[in-house]
Amino acid sequence: MNTTGRVTLPIEVGIDDEVREMMHKLGADAVRNSDGTHLPDLVHELAAKVYSTYFPARGDQEWAVDNPDTTPHIFLQSNRTPATGGPLTINVMDGYLREQVEPQTEVDLSRYWQVIDRTTGETVASEAWRLDGTELVIIDEPVLGHVYTVNFLAKQIWDSTQMYNYITNNWDEDPTRVKERPYDNRLPQVWDRVQSELDRWLADHPEVDVVRFTTFFYHFTLVFNEHRKEKYVDWFGYSMSVSVAAMEEFARVYGYRLTPEDFVDEGYYNCAFRVPSDRFRDWMDFIGDFVTSRVRALTDAVHASGKEAMMFLGDNWIGTEPYGPRFAETGLDAVVGSVGNAATCRMIADIDVPYTEGRFLPYFFPDVFNPEGDPIAEANESWRMARRAIVRSPLDRIGYGGYLSLALKFPDFVDRIGEICQEFRDIYDAAEGKSPRSASVRVGIINAWGTIRSWQTHMVAHALPYEQTEAYVGVIEALAGLPFDISFLSFEDVLNGALENIDVVINVGEAGTAYSGGRYWADPQLQAAVRAFVARGGGIIGIGEPCAYSANGAFNQLSDVFGIDREQSWSLSTGRYPRVIDEHFITDGEGEAPLSLDARGGARYWVPVVESVDILAVNGTSVEAAVHSYCDGRAVYLSGLPYNQINARILTKAIFWAAQAEDEYLSTAHSVDPRVDVATYDSGRQLVYNSSCERVNAKIVKNGEISEVFTLNPYESTWID
Amino acid sequence: MNTTGRVTLPIEVGIDDEVREMMHKLGADAVRNSDGTHLPDLVHELAAKVYSTYFPARGDQEWAVDNPDTTPHIFLQSNRTPATGGPLTINVMDGYLREQVEPQTEVDLSRYWQVIDRTTGETVASEAWRLDGTELVIIDEPVLGHVYTVNFLAKQIWDSTQMYNYITNNWDEDPTRVKERPYDNRLPQVWDRVQSELDRWLADHPEVDVVRFTTFFYHFTLVFNEHRKEKYVDWFGYSMSVSVAAMEEFARVYGYRLTPEDFVDEGYYNCAFRVPSDRFRDWMDFIGDFVTSRVRALTDAVHASGKEAMMFLGDNWIGTEPYGPRFAETGLDAVVGSVGNAATCRMIADIDVPYTEGRFLPYFFPDVFNPEGDPIAEANESWRMARRAIVRSPLDRIGYGGYLSLALKFPDFVDRIGEICQEFRDIYDAAEGKSPRSASVRVGIINAWGTIRSWQTHMVAHALPYEQTEAYVGVIEALAGLPFDISFLSFEDVLNGALENIDVVINVGEAGTAYSGGRYWADPQLQAAVRAFVARGGGIIGIGEPCAYSANGAFNQLSDVFGIDREQSWSLSTGRYPRVIDEHFITDGEGEAPLSLDARGGARYWVPVVESVDILAVNGTSVEAAVHSYCDGRAVYLSGLPYNQINARILTKAIFWAAQAEDEYLSTAHSVDPRVDVATYDSGRQLVYNSSCERVNAKIVKNGEISEVFTLNPYESTWID
Repeated sequence: MNTTGRVTLPIEVGIDDEVREMMHKLGADAVRNSDGTHLPDLVHELAAKVYSTYFPARGDQEWAVDNPDTTPHIFLQSNRTPATGGPLTINVMDGYLREQVEPQTEVDLSRYWQVIDRTTGETVASEAWRLDGTELVIIDEPVLGHVYTVNFLAKQIWDSTQMYNYITNNWDEDPTRVKERPYDNRLPQVWDRVQSELDRWLADHPEVDVVRFTTFFYHFTLVFNEHRKEKYVDWFGYSMSVSVAAMEEFARVYGYRLTPEDFVDEGYYNCAFRVPSDRFRDWMDFIGDFVTSRVRALTDAVHASGKEAMMFLGDNWIGTEPYGPRFAETGLDAVVGSVGNAATCRMIADIDVPYTEGRFLPYFFPDVFNPEGDPIAEANESWRMARRAIVRSPLDRIGYGGYLSLALKFPDFVDRIGEICQEFRDIYDAAEGKSPRSASVRVGIINAWGTIRSWQTHMVAHALPYEQTEAYVGVIEALAGLPFDISFLSFEDVLNGALENIDVVINVGEAGTAYSGGRYWADPQLQAAVRAFVARGGGIIGIGEPCAYSANGAFNQLSDVFGIDREQSWSLSTGRYPRVIDEHFITDGEGEAPLSLDARGGARYWVPVVESVDILAVNGTSVEAAVHSYCDGRAVYLSGLPYNQINARILTKAIFWAAQAEDEYLSTAHSVDPRVDVATYDSGRQLVYNSSCERVNAKIVKNGEISEVFTLNPYESTWID
Repeated sequence: MNTTGRVTLPIEVGIDDEVREMMHKLGADAVRNSDGTHLPDLVHELAAKVYSTYFPARGDQEWAVDNPDTTPHIFLQSNRTPATGGPLTINVMDGYLREQVEPQTEVDLSRYWQVIDRTTGETVASEAWRLDGTELVIIDEPVLGHVYTVNFLAKQIWDSTQMYNYITNNWDEDPTRVKERPYDNRLPQVWDRVQSELDRWLADHPEVDVVRFTTFFYHFTLVFNEHRKEKYVDWFGYSMSVSVAAMEEFARVYGYRLTPEDFVDEGYYNCAFRVPSDRFRDWMDFIGDFVTSRVRALTDAVHASGKEAMMFLGDNWIGTEPYGPRFAETGLDAVVGSVGNAATCRMIADIDVPYTEGRFLPYFFPDVFNPEGDPIAEANESWRMARRAIVRSPLDRIGYGGYLSLALKFPDFVDRIGEICQEFRDIYDAAEGKSPRSASVRVGIINAWGTIRSWQTHMVAHALPYEQTEAYVGVIEALAGLPFDISFLSFEDVLNGALENIDVVINVGEAGTAYSGGRYWADPQLQAAVRAFVARGGGIIGIGEPCAYSANGAFNQLSDVFGIDREQSWSLSTGRYPRVIDEHFITDGEGEAPLSLDARGGARYWVPVVESVDILAVNGTSVEAAVHSYCDGRAVYLSGLPYNQINARILTKAIFWAAQAEDEYLSTAHSVDPRVDVATYDSGRQLVYNSSCERVNAKIVKNGEISEVFTLNPYESTWID
């Protein structure tokens, strides 16, 4: 039993003895600094790898202040402003934080600013408006009763993450803190400086083994309002990768020009929930090419100095796309990211890189580590959620972040994370770096994004809950801990024959989003490909508003396959006779109470449209669960699947049923109680783990026979040989 | 005090004494027969008007059976059928009741049948399919994975109402009953026969004063499935007005041909919730012209015989359109209809005809008049709901229907409806045929239909509740009993300046429906007209999904006006900071608890999109009520308004607030408790009525001062002089 390794500890200056003790307690084999802490001299003597943060887009503030014309840019949209009589004046900065962004007026305004009539969708001729000062746009003769917006180019004058930390921690009162200014690595003078500074820094820091890039060049979209609160946050957003230089280079390479509106996107800013336009995809590729080649230059320099290059999955990660086609070219040795639940854990663990590390919660920050806080509860919850994913696809390492001195004041917490670190090592060692046995069923999640957004669908801000998406992101959360071979496929992949290697297709999301698919479903070839896949024996699971595109008498373009469609109030006149069946494999409790779907937050008013569909659950007129046999295949409809253990079990059984593999489910060791998971390794060992906060009497069955019965405490796991 | 008049009693043979006694008890001044009852000889001596039912589309069954080629027709759609390999055979009758409809194959199939690829929306060339027998359509080379339907012409071989009664009452076991066959008055031989038969019948029935047409020529759409259950019922549907003769005549008059798809409408059959196509409107006009002129011929004949012509608003009412432009030309003396609630009551009462009559519930049928039934409760409920409308726009008469002999077994019921009849007369007499004082606020409900669907919006089957529409039909139900001048305006009316005579506009309904407006809101001129109306001081109230059309960065095309828009999941990244305010005129309880909106079934995920909007109620992230001042006008958003007394009061106050007429509300006598309504007549008399089933302590206030306090029993009303 290894009691050391695979754990990274945040350390700081002035508590050398405690650092040594904690390293022993957690079995840590690496140390790191955090934002605002420094590595103590002690690191020279520790038998551990040393990580150090490195900021290629804002680490060099002295230089940044001396070179103010090097900021990256962003296209922003003004408020929607109605013309209610006379000339219309729009202050583009209304609603924005002047500390963060500043209109860029030293550009060709006719190209880099754009006034749009949002009532007609038409761009207003640049001769028809003028700029007064740096913020006021005046349209002399607007159309009465129309609404106008201004798309404008703005400089990023305050780094978004540092701004967030600064404001959140109220650093206005701390004279040692300045507002950090980002710089754009596309500019030759920036890039020269960044390269030479990195070389210098590498030489100056022999004690550092791992350069933890935080991160590279372009921040995800994070814009504050004039009240210093979040106005727009998109963890996947490319809006902050803009500059005149980039726009001109794009035009040269791609042969056409992008406009401000290609970024503003009616105000939706190409959010990942939008069905992406071809122009936006081109921009992603363009930025990806640039970022990949520049990251490679940095990792080459790191390797040349004998160190490793690690990327933090966050902050300025835009353009790296760990699931994109060029990620291998970055030369990175590792990726580390924050683990909030199973989905975010899988998002990190499944990245194809030499090693991955998950930073666990809670962060050692005063918001939790105070007399009212309950850091043990947070650690347990984080572990309970993440462990489901870790079992299926092990992270290589875990770690913590923040101020160690704070955590030390909570000795029970320290004991508990010591246990968690050991449990993590045990799982890793038992698996020997491999996953436990998977089911034979190959699952393909199909949406407009495909592979590039693997494990990232329906996320808004990283792992934060959103009422409107919980019923759909729950599917990803559930799958992250389930024993299936899972692929994320784009509709283009489907058209190119990807379903030949898939047993069960899942389409989950809200109508009109990239995840359901929106206008893609207007494509007869896509419909025919998926319909034929099911007809010849495939399985399909639709959750929420699958295959949704209102056309030709259907909202669900595969309504014949599912037997369920959205009632758009255009066929309320049609009699519906839902045939609710009492028993079904999917909801069967195997001797206990039937599994009851919690479809909270899911789609409403999806109704039966063929006689042959079996309804498993209905709420008023809204079907919550239904199954339908279709030619040689099977379809399952669920109106929503927020994550919980019962829902995860329902999804598991729905997948087996859709794949016509009920026998496989029954003949694989599993717990009757859905709160308990069982993972069986090739060695024959079984890990049985309680993924709930309740005490559970677990009954392990196989082929209908009970093999084990025991009690598990909340969060407890145990091994069976 | 009049104790007689304005009441119609259903009578029957063999209970002459009881008829006389009941006439006295109810103060009835008219008698009628019902479906399945005959007028007794007694009618010759009664001092009462005599109504007799008359059926111009099915009353002459002997002739109908001898002339089987005279049925009206209907276009139907087959099941959506996928092509999963090889030739595709579709049995068009699958799902239909062969007793009711029969494919019409003796027509030019290439014109009157139509095969459509519902995956592409394209019509399949008639050479590419063939008919085998009378029901099977074979497509030899369908596209694999596409879905096909057949639009086919079918004969109506069983009258829909008689079918409904026959099946519901199980007349299969009654040898005296036959299945009645409808005939199409467009055919010359039918029309000749119907005219001559009416003349003969009028001459033969001197005892009849009022011919109660039940109704005219074309039934609303009512199609049964193969299990003899309702498959499709649309009280407004024109599908059953079809024939080859009509189609050819239409082509001649309008200069273009309609296709089967113009009726099938992707399977939605031009349901009233669909934004109507121009082609369907043309058909309505075409049928309306025909029906109006033919009705006029019948009413002329009735008048020539010295009798009155009354129309039953139901069954074969299609093409009469009581709120259409040609209704006055019908020459009708009266309209009678079934009253289920306030909205249906107003729908009848507001028709511009010499007199209107409401048939009250319960119908004297065994389903209620049995030992387990509670006919008094039904009478109270019907009266409680209808009285709100009657006070505002008096019906001229009320009546009952069914078998009098059944009602006589419930003497308490007879007493209760005697009271109701007297209360009705008292209200009518106090009003002297006029309405009580209205508020000064003129309300315009704007939707795709306008006037022609006055009081008919969001109804599916007549007055039956539908989960998906209750939050919207509740607005109509509330308005039917409120003291406002109410118009129903089409978007064309709005474009033609109708808002000049309106103070507050209401747009209510679900996105994509004719009631919200769907694609109409893509029209910049409509947006500009309504936006400018509010900007210059008008009021607007949006309920559910107002002004909804996803385009140009908004779902609610007047999102700037309301300050609220639907979160389509494309802007989840945008921070929302709903400012919930504690007090507002609209929800103020005037000393009692604040008024709490019940928005059950309403829209979800409508969120604040401007800073200046005041939120009155929010549920999770979904705004339920909000107010917004916009230039010189005001906007109110409510996510839904199912009918109840508190919601009706909230709507009342929202209208006054939107009109900037709060003072008028406060200075008009009203009850603090929303369950009690107050109507003030020009005479100065006030009717105070409890529109709830609870005992209420009513406090009448005016200008903040209490004028009266008293207790009202459930349903009770009282007069104040």
